[in-house]
Amino acid sequence: MPELRRDPIQKRWVIIASERSRRPDDFPRAEPLRTGGFCPFCEGNESKTPPEITAIRNIRTSRDQPGWEVRVVPNKFPALQIEGALDRKGVGIYNRMNGVGAHEVIIETPQHDMNLADAPVDHVKKVLWMCRERLRDLLRDLRFKYILIFKNYGAAAGAALSHPHTQLIATPVTPLTLAEELTSAKEHYLDKERCLFCDLIQQELDSGDRIVIAGSQFIAMTPFASRFPFEIFIAPRYHNHSFAETSDDMLDQLALVLKEVLLRIKKCLIDPPYNFVVHTIPNVKARPRRATYWETLELDFHWHIELIPRLTQVAGFEWGTGFYINPTAPEEAAKYLREVKL
Amino acid sequence: MPELRRDPIQKRWVIIASERSRRPDDFPRAEPLRTGGFCPFCEGNESKTPPEITAIRNIRTSRDQPGWEVRVVPNKFPALQIEGALDRKGVGIYNRMNGVGAHEVIIETPQHDMNLADAPVDHVKKVLWMCRERLRDLLRDLRFKYILIFKNYGAAAGAALSHPHTQLIATPVTPLTLAEELTSAKEHYLDKERCLFCDLIQQELDSGDRIVIAGSQFIAMTPFASRFPFEIFIAPRYHNHSFAETSDDMLDQLALVLKEVLLRIKKCLIDPPYNFVVHTIPNVKARPRRATYWETLELDFHWHIELIPRLTQVAGFEWGTGFYINPTAPEEAAKYLREVKL
Repeated sequence: MPELRRDPIQKRWVIIASERSRRPDDFPRAEPLRTGGFCPFCEGNESKTPPEITAIRNIRTSRDQPGWEVRVVPNKFPALQIEGALDRKGVGIYNRMNGVGAHEVIIETPQHDMNLADAPVDHVKKVLWMCRERLRDLLRDLRFKYILIFKNYGAAAGAALSHPHTQLIATPVTPLTLAEELTSAKEHYLDKERCLFCDLIQQELDSGDRIVIAGSQFIAMTPFASRFPFEIFIAPRYHNHSFAETSDDMLDQLALVLKEVLLRIKKCLIDPPYNFVVHTIPNVKARPRRATYWETLELDFHWHIELIPRLTQVAGFEWGTGFYINPTAPEEAAKYLREVKL
Repeated sequence: MPELRRDPIQKRWVIIASERSRRPDDFPRAEPLRTGGFCPFCEGNESKTPPEITAIRNIRTSRDQPGWEVRVVPNKFPALQIEGALDRKGVGIYNRMNGVGAHEVIIETPQHDMNLADAPVDHVKKVLWMCRERLRDLLRDLRFKYILIFKNYGAAAGAALSHPHTQLIATPVTPLTLAEELTSAKEHYLDKERCLFCDLIQQELDSGDRIVIAGSQFIAMTPFASRFPFEIFIAPRYHNHSFAETSDDMLDQLALVLKEVLLRIKKCLIDPPYNFVVHTIPNVKARPRRATYWETLELDFHWHIELIPRLTQVAGFEWGTGFYINPTAPEEAAKYLREVKL
């Protein structure tokens, strides 16, 4: 059983994934991406994944058989385990609990070589729809405080398989970065009775310098204090606290903007590795008693996507301080992304 | 002039280093480490670096000439600039200031191929002594809130040159990770009137499971909630809040432990890339009025070194959450490191 441990100094939680145990000679110098050879995510190889959780599939086909468009399976080497009790415990100065959670893979397409940037908007919407459905389902489990949707594209971004996929991890604690964002949003709301993100988006739309796409329902921009070159922030243009509660019509608009962002990045930066993560509100049904940032979450938080092309190495300075050096001004990055020919 | 910007959501500061500006086609797929060819840090090439700040050198030799053992120069492509006023300014919802600071390179040896892990203990001490001297000197500049000492070893750890060197960046703000550590330490002290780190070290010495080296003055251990496989924490065994105030005798002991840690990592993990960073107290003479974590810093903070071998890729999950998945239990890692033949 994996274990969750909290660092008493930096207060972050870590998953010690014993199931994935690695010995000293088990770390390759550069992790190669499995491109050639057998792929368990391809159509026809359904029996090589753990049993299907759900899929968008032709009504005449059955579970774990070909005939699907988007397919969800448990991760074969999960970071967290779905069964068991949390068994929270103190160990002297430390805190630990069992590594209970969910770790799912959303296989975006039966086609091994599809790129989300080139897929039809309609298909991008199906992937987003599936992310929302899995999120809604997992929110029913009161052991899970947070459900993180993320994508690793390319070996340098941590992908182990090249077949297009998105992942989802449900955790029994609210991750530190989210807790910090929720706290900032709350402070702003308590002070001004306005959403921090709405204020920020309005200022960005007024200036326009960092806007990449100003859609009718979603905006994409390079953040004022971008940590990385060409970092991108995608958010609903108008206040909306929860990705789980996003309507089908909104998903249409999101698919349009996400696809265009991915295409602009692909063209501008020559198909770079990237990561994206969805930041939405935690599981409100599982709220802990003392977490002060939970009240008025619907008013003060604003869900969004963080997208990071992996162009530079993160070095000691960044790890040691949480302080980043970015060699490309976000205004420049936005300009390049706006002007690239599609 | 580089610019410092603060993200209003995650509250981290970022350096937008316009001097290092990068266009979309300027990001190589894998950053190669310059190993062959000309090296500006080698003896005889002193004229190819910016003018020497200081050096440990033969008394009969002069500045910017051969005859040195450890040499300090400004970084040729500094992330921050030494001259200028901060010019703090709000831009609507955002905060910015000029990128004023220092960025120095401590060239550890005239020998291109020396490895700190194999160097004589006496030479390691000279490098540490120089780090402390530069830190002491920069602390006199009241524009600098924090001075970070760090080392990137190997291309995957962000090193641009292979000649052994350590770096130092002085910043006009306290980096987020440090502020968080100072806050945790203060909370613990206010509650228990004991140092959090002293308590933690005592618990670790009692259990022994995660101890790599228990020296008379310094301990090296794998943290209970290690983010990365074989992550290492080095700290004074007894309470000590400031690296700048570490005595020469203590530096002897630190050199012994640091060299042994580097050697154990080199042998155990086959010379991996790594980063280390020194966490010490901020510049107390430059304390801001409202930063509550500054009082009693001498009592509640405990300086230390974080060392991270770069064995795994950091993926979307980690970036998006500050929540890490570590495939090697720290108890296992400590055991491997203790048992490796030197």
